[in-house]
Amino acid sequence: MANKLTIPYRMRWWGWGVDGNDKPITAESEKLLQREIGMSLEANNPPRDIAEVTIPDSRLADDDIAALSAVVGEESVATDHDTRVKHAVGRSYADLARLRAAKLDVAPDAVVLPKTEEQIEQLLKVCSERKTAIVAFGGGTSVVGGVEAIDGGFGKAIAVSMVAFDKILEIDEISGTVTVESGVFGPDLEEALSAKGFTAGHFPQSFEYSTVGGWVSCRSAGQESSGYGRIDRNVIGMRVVTPAGTMEFRDMPSSASGPNPRELFLGSEGTLGIITHVTIALNKRPEKMLFDTYFFNSFDEAAQVMRELEQSGHVPHLARLSDEKETKFGLTQLASGNLSENVIKYLKFRGIDTPCMTIFGFAQTDALGARVARERLATRLLTKKCVRVGSIPGMAWVNHRFSSPYLRDVMMTRRVGVDTLETATTWDQACELRRKIISRMEAAGEAHGTPVYVFCHISHMYESGCSLYFTYFFRETEGEILQQWMDIKSAASNAMMEFGGTITHHHGVGQDHSPQYYEENTELFAKVMQTIKKELDPAGILNPGKLATGPRALEDRYNGKMI
Amino acid sequence: MANKLTIPYRMRWWGWGVDGNDKPITAESEKLLQREIGMSLEANNPPRDIAEVTIPDSRLADDDIAALSAVVGEESVATDHDTRVKHAVGRSYADLARLRAAKLDVAPDAVVLPKTEEQIEQLLKVCSERKTAIVAFGGGTSVVGGVEAIDGGFGKAIAVSMVAFDKILEIDEISGTVTVESGVFGPDLEEALSAKGFTAGHFPQSFEYSTVGGWVSCRSAGQESSGYGRIDRNVIGMRVVTPAGTMEFRDMPSSASGPNPRELFLGSEGTLGIITHVTIALNKRPEKMLFDTYFFNSFDEAAQVMRELEQSGHVPHLARLSDEKETKFGLTQLASGNLSENVIKYLKFRGIDTPCMTIFGFAQTDALGARVARERLATRLLTKKCVRVGSIPGMAWVNHRFSSPYLRDVMMTRRVGVDTLETATTWDQACELRRKIISRMEAAGEAHGTPVYVFCHISHMYESGCSLYFTYFFRETEGEILQQWMDIKSAASNAMMEFGGTITHHHGVGQDHSPQYYEENTELFAKVMQTIKKELDPAGILNPGKLATGPRALEDRYNGKMI
Repeated sequence: MANKLTIPYRMRWWGWGVDGNDKPITAESEKLLQREIGMSLEANNPPRDIAEVTIPDSRLADDDIAALSAVVGEESVATDHDTRVKHAVGRSYADLARLRAAKLDVAPDAVVLPKTEEQIEQLLKVCSERKTAIVAFGGGTSVVGGVEAIDGGFGKAIAVSMVAFDKILEIDEISGTVTVESGVFGPDLEEALSAKGFTAGHFPQSFEYSTVGGWVSCRSAGQESSGYGRIDRNVIGMRVVTPAGTMEFRDMPSSASGPNPRELFLGSEGTLGIITHVTIALNKRPEKMLFDTYFFNSFDEAAQVMRELEQSGHVPHLARLSDEKETKFGLTQLASGNLSENVIKYLKFRGIDTPCMTIFGFAQTDALGARVARERLATRLLTKKCVRVGSIPGMAWVNHRFSSPYLRDVMMTRRVGVDTLETATTWDQACELRRKIISRMEAAGEAHGTPVYVFCHISHMYESGCSLYFTYFFRETEGEILQQWMDIKSAASNAMMEFGGTITHHHGVGQDHSPQYYEENTELFAKVMQTIKKELDPAGILNPGKLATGPRALEDRYNGKMI
Repeated sequence: MANKLTIPYRMRWWGWGVDGNDKPITAESEKLLQREIGMSLEANNPPRDIAEVTIPDSRLADDDIAALSAVVGEESVATDHDTRVKHAVGRSYADLARLRAAKLDVAPDAVVLPKTEEQIEQLLKVCSERKTAIVAFGGGTSVVGGVEAIDGGFGKAIAVSMVAFDKILEIDEISGTVTVESGVFGPDLEEALSAKGFTAGHFPQSFEYSTVGGWVSCRSAGQESSGYGRIDRNVIGMRVVTPAGTMEFRDMPSSASGPNPRELFLGSEGTLGIITHVTIALNKRPEKMLFDTYFFNSFDEAAQVMRELEQSGHVPHLARLSDEKETKFGLTQLASGNLSENVIKYLKFRGIDTPCMTIFGFAQTDALGARVARERLATRLLTKKCVRVGSIPGMAWVNHRFSSPYLRDVMMTRRVGVDTLETATTWDQACELRRKIISRMEAAGEAHGTPVYVFCHISHMYESGCSLYFTYFFRETEGEILQQWMDIKSAASNAMMEFGGTITHHHGVGQDHSPQYYEENTELFAKVMQTIKKELDPAGILNPGKLATGPRALEDRYNGKMI
């Protein structure tokens, strides 16, 4: 049986990313959270040692192991405690809370590491015959319960780590496309593209620890997707292995050859097949990204300006609008409390009493083009009530663009729950939807006697609408942590359904969003998805309990797992 | 039973569009075609009178008629000869040839005109029970056999005319979207949007005679789709009625909530359900479109320039590159032969011996912006080997942008077959694919002893590739017309499969492209589509014999229909 090192895994087992990147929050932020949610001064909930984590024993019999080993080789089947813990769950708040409590009621019975497409085909065959659930596992960054090793009632589940599918197969410099194996991680992809003057332009917050296959199967968006487009806009070809057979959809910029088959697998979250190769349309790598920052006096005013810019084709590449509370929290995160106060004073002097920060990023391929675009935008904003403060906040943002997820780990030690959730809607509903979601979340916290501090930003814009991304803080009550979180999250999710949102703009469905999946996509379409699943995965082994076969309520999912 | 006028129909029964728009070809063009394909000087194959068209008798029994009448009202069920002829086929070359021969072996047994979604739901119920095929019929412009009244083995088929679904339901000026019923025709949509300063920007060549529902269900592209995007990029919401139930997919600019359900119906060609409402993201209406024209010395050189412009984000809104033969034919179509000769002399003097014409259209919302964009492009092209000739050819093109399909009618009277076909591919394969398709078509013509004159243009560009649109002429041999056409078309279609193309970039699949549909999308995905159809349309009544249930070879389709 494999030792612990044969299945590579990039993140620390208990939290986000790797050690050394956590940053304590500033004294100013601490004061704000004390005031707003009654955060305690103690830090008494540190992560434990991996050996302390309780997981169920592996349920695989010797002949199961032998069957898997016959496919991938003995050295690529791991059943040791640590490897199983690492591949048990993703990085949703509920996952982090359970890892920190060192109490998991679920873990894959083995983790296997296939190295060829034939091995995947064989694994699907063996597991279909032996009725063993299969969870395709890339970087494990799912924040919606998408990679949890649910056994789907089979009594056995394995995680299939895709990280050996790590080859850049072809960079076509004429077509501006790259064909990669699905287990390639973000930084490795960009490094290879960079050498040829290209970028995929796909930078989800999970960029450093997530794989191309994860992006595609979860339909992700990146921080620069207003400019470069979401992953679903840029995938032009793919190969998918299913128990019913392997399909290759040729590289095609566009077609009218019936419903696009690639679209069926974009967002299929490992429930219909395992994606092995992907071809992505690329962009010329910008020389440099320039930034600019403006403060508006209210979210609604700024959102209207953003809409006008987007609809007239003048939104740059990257654009983020923070609401009043996010701006306030962001300012408290500046290293010096004085600086924050001075910025607020200056803005007040300029007529901005309730500042909402907007960062723009300009990534033209030549630096002059970027400078020109920046000044053109400034000209357009001359008639708007806003204050331009230059590039520093944008540069600060870009330096920390992948570090926000660490905040959850830092705060959990302080017994503060931090999570994010997101939606999208058409422009006509955006401001009202934001208000409704926040007020429902606040009410859900109040019902627990624990205030919720919620803020929001817009980071992805479309001609007809935008995304809304929420971050929220609440004081954890021991023994009620998951219940608090579930109630707050459900309040937000239900508001999205009620007021014209989508249950997810880029995190995916997994288990945490499946209650609303049925409502948003209609029961009949969910049934269609189940029918498709039966056709491609007759034994039902592929990532059971997610997406269109997921739970009908969060309570169904977390029942009995309370911490 | 309804009289002939109760089912509105916009086109002339035997050809494209309406009378009065046909334009005889110039003497110069005539000379070219005499030289190239041996076109005769006689015009001895005029269209006949509609009364002469033979169609099978209606197979509906009185109780069938009564059942349909109970749903839509007696006045909205037509079984008269003329109405049935008008809704029997679309406007593929094979359709036109059969209409001109006044010999149809297929026609709907009745044409019905529902006026509400409930009536459509009831129609699907009645026809499922009574095993009657249903063909949703918009403008009837399909050039791929998509609306032919195939009965799917049931022995009965009706056409459901969607033209009473003609309401613009809402123009949302904030989100920049329009929600329309699916039977709205192109000009009616643009007229309504124009009043509010918007455009859908969707101008397929069939624009005047096709409906929004047709665009969506056939995944169409418009002449300005390089700028405005294809219809599949702009549909953000829809309602679909299926025998298994009605689904509404909320208006959403973007989502990660699993595979996009809208995508399943984009390109479903009436085989899965009937689309009743669509929401489309709009664009600000340009003040004016400016044009510019350049001549390059070869298609391959010009294609490379187009690619570089597109990949650096500098392709305007509308861009068309004609190859050498299309340019030559286009010049012969100028009213004065002298002008054409003088243009060629001038270009030769400037070093362009084998001219390839490129038209650019600039449609910024303000006229100054368009002028600036035009001059910027000129600056970019300064270093390229090409000759700028100004706006006149572009203005001529825009004035005749919807008139090319009339050429088929004009030429058919002269016993010349004219048809078009199209594909797309990645840039690295585009030039070679064009050559292969042309040489295979020429070879297929030679096998019949009838030369084929084929030319090609690029009219839709993407970062990773482009469309290729072919027009071809051949001398019709009486009694072999369909065989000639089938052989030439199959040669092209098979070349698309062999050399990395798609079977259709924007015409759709219907019956004429289904032989290659299976290969392009894989047999397994075709099976998935059939499974989905069984779920949504258990009786199999919706547009049978098309798309994923279409013929495996053109011979299967046209066998016994030879003219």
